[in-house]
Amino acid sequence: MQTPWEYRYANRTQRMGSSIIRELLKWTEQPDIISFAGGLPAPEVFPVKQFKEACNTILDEFGAQALQYSTTEGYRPLREMIARHATRFGIEIIPDNILITSGSQQALDFIGRVFINQGDHIVVESPTYLGALQAWNAYGAQYISVPSDENGMIVDELEKALRVGPKFIYVLPNFQNPAGTTLSLERRKQLVELADRYGVPIIEDDPYGQLRYEGEHLPSVVTLDSQYRGDNGSYTGNVIYLSTFSKILAPGIRLAWVVAPQEVIRKLVMAKQAADLHTATFNQMVAYEVGKHGFLDEHVKFIRATYKERRDVMLDTMEEVFPPGVRWTHPQGGMFLWGILPPGMDAAEVLKIAIQKKVAFVPGGSFHPNGGGENTMRINFSFSSPEVIREGITRLGLLLRELVKKE
Amino acid sequence: MQTPWEYRYANRTQRMGSSIIRELLKWTEQPDIISFAGGLPAPEVFPVKQFKEACNTILDEFGAQALQYSTTEGYRPLREMIARHATRFGIEIIPDNILITSGSQQALDFIGRVFINQGDHIVVESPTYLGALQAWNAYGAQYISVPSDENGMIVDELEKALRVGPKFIYVLPNFQNPAGTTLSLERRKQLVELADRYGVPIIEDDPYGQLRYEGEHLPSVVTLDSQYRGDNGSYTGNVIYLSTFSKILAPGIRLAWVVAPQEVIRKLVMAKQAADLHTATFNQMVAYEVGKHGFLDEHVKFIRATYKERRDVMLDTMEEVFPPGVRWTHPQGGMFLWGILPPGMDAAEVLKIAIQKKVAFVPGGSFHPNGGGENTMRINFSFSSPEVIREGITRLGLLLRELVKKE
Repeated sequence: MQTPWEYRYANRTQRMGSSIIRELLKWTEQPDIISFAGGLPAPEVFPVKQFKEACNTILDEFGAQALQYSTTEGYRPLREMIARHATRFGIEIIPDNILITSGSQQALDFIGRVFINQGDHIVVESPTYLGALQAWNAYGAQYISVPSDENGMIVDELEKALRVGPKFIYVLPNFQNPAGTTLSLERRKQLVELADRYGVPIIEDDPYGQLRYEGEHLPSVVTLDSQYRGDNGSYTGNVIYLSTFSKILAPGIRLAWVVAPQEVIRKLVMAKQAADLHTATFNQMVAYEVGKHGFLDEHVKFIRATYKERRDVMLDTMEEVFPPGVRWTHPQGGMFLWGILPPGMDAAEVLKIAIQKKVAFVPGGSFHPNGGGENTMRINFSFSSPEVIREGITRLGLLLRELVKKE
Repeated sequence: MQTPWEYRYANRTQRMGSSIIRELLKWTEQPDIISFAGGLPAPEVFPVKQFKEACNTILDEFGAQALQYSTTEGYRPLREMIARHATRFGIEIIPDNILITSGSQQALDFIGRVFINQGDHIVVESPTYLGALQAWNAYGAQYISVPSDENGMIVDELEKALRVGPKFIYVLPNFQNPAGTTLSLERRKQLVELADRYGVPIIEDDPYGQLRYEGEHLPSVVTLDSQYRGDNGSYTGNVIYLSTFSKILAPGIRLAWVVAPQEVIRKLVMAKQAADLHTATFNQMVAYEVGKHGFLDEHVKFIRATYKERRDVMLDTMEEVFPPGVRWTHPQGGMFLWGILPPGMDAAEVLKIAIQKKVAFVPGGSFHPNGGGENTMRINFSFSSPEVIREGITRLGLLLRELVKKE
């Protein structure tokens, strides 16, 4: 039945499309399914005690300020703290290079709002992060996919894509969602150089950078680009860098940040002002209170140890139970790994059977904006306990053995 | 100097425009100015103690859930609480008619995203809320202004506007921001009837409905429209209703809600998912904990008493010190009143002098999307203490006396 509302929606509403992530999250709500489909942090690593202490301190000492409206750019001491932390990792910025957002998804949305005209081309890795596609589809983006391998985006293939005249390049260099891969140092340098030569900005999305379980920290793309400096010491280069408190503190407080040249920050601030005025004052002040004396550095070590164990149990179990012909990535950090089924096998079909066996993952096809990847799957290792991971991967392995045998 | 970023911005970026509200908020930061320019609640009415208790309870009992990702629609018990409260005021809805947003500004943004194509016409009161114009300018809206008087929008003038074929009608029926006026019951009925006849939806923005200091509560526009019912008892009518916790609890937690037919909620949910995934879980759970046993009903009485005193002091002082020829509205609630200078006087020019005298307000011109109102001013009475209000209005009155004499 047609309702009077249907002909009132804006044209862009058609592009807002099916909410795949959201449909997926529903699996995680069924208690008898072992779900590797979501992208949730382990609740066991939330620093509830420190968070509670910070809430009490903020409300005791700054109650009126914490509950009042505040500026669009974000709470200044928090931006100073983020700038100091970034500088320690070689990202030399000043607080005016930072905008606080209500989660990284909002930063992706504002980037779409500020940069994307209907029909603009965006260069993405294939596979890439679904939330970015969802944000930018609303603005009518088209995607140029650059293939990737164990070392991330195959930058040799990038130049072809840059000749199309894209608006920007979107890349997740560390422990990528979905594939778990890390862009090599050489490719990072090559990426910065190429983007600079073609005058195409880079959006560097780095939610997991702190969550490395082996190997050496690699410099961020924005660091490699940081020869560009304003008079006030600000960053004026070619990269917009995103990170978040969701993975190192907690996602339920919706707190993330964008690093960009000040002129870009000003545009993003205008977008944010029209979109939601500002990020919750209270949440920003509490996050600052939790982090100001270096607690998060210590806490990240605990998260790393927890997730490393889970990753290792998953990799070991896969080694034991997955049949020949099935491959998977070995992520050096982050929350996901990537399974690759024999060519011709359809992961979406496998999922249907897997759900009957009470185990779930995300078929990889949806992470490819221009098709492909039907035989791939994203598998999360951060959320479930080691015991549950062992059980779930065993279920999946037994199923895959049967299916691979049949092929 | 032109920078490489300038030619990269999307076309809509030009429409995002000057951030007037934000520039205004800067006055409030100068400590020696008495500012009636902002729209801030009084920090003295924030229930810091109850909020702190709720934070502790939620973190003690539901820490892991409160800090985790959650669903886009919003925390179910909070939506149930809002539905129960709305029903008490005659707005018969079910929780599925509700979406939780990060402040009402976000609801305005999503309405723009879901409904407005470039060039669409929106009917607004003149003057109207600046934040709505700012949200919808980004989507290329054009405005048809309907004049208003002491009883709100002059609905007799509406029919002409509806013949243009607008996308929707935007109205703030209770203690309107900026004018402080209230739409009469007769006009509410007439508005619902006309909108229904022309098949044009109404956006009813009601941040201040609970803050009435005199007279009887008037039924919301959505209530008058509520003959429309789905099989499940849901609201299926012609109105999208917005309200917020910013004025009855605190704005710094960014928590508001939209009431709409379920099919509209589904579209808004898609918009929210792409925009910021969901509103902070923790904030929603804390607001529910604060409100679940009826505390907000009691608390609203305290806010009413506080603001009524401030309004009365402002009205009394104006009566004493404002010169003949200057008029002002008598708001029955809310946070603002509207000053009207003699015709030909420019409130923006008055502001420049007023700032030298260390008192500030908002010139009314910016609240008129199609011009006019140059001799009007918005004056906030919620934020300053009675003593400060008396001092500030006296400063302004003395200034106006001089200026009116000169004319």
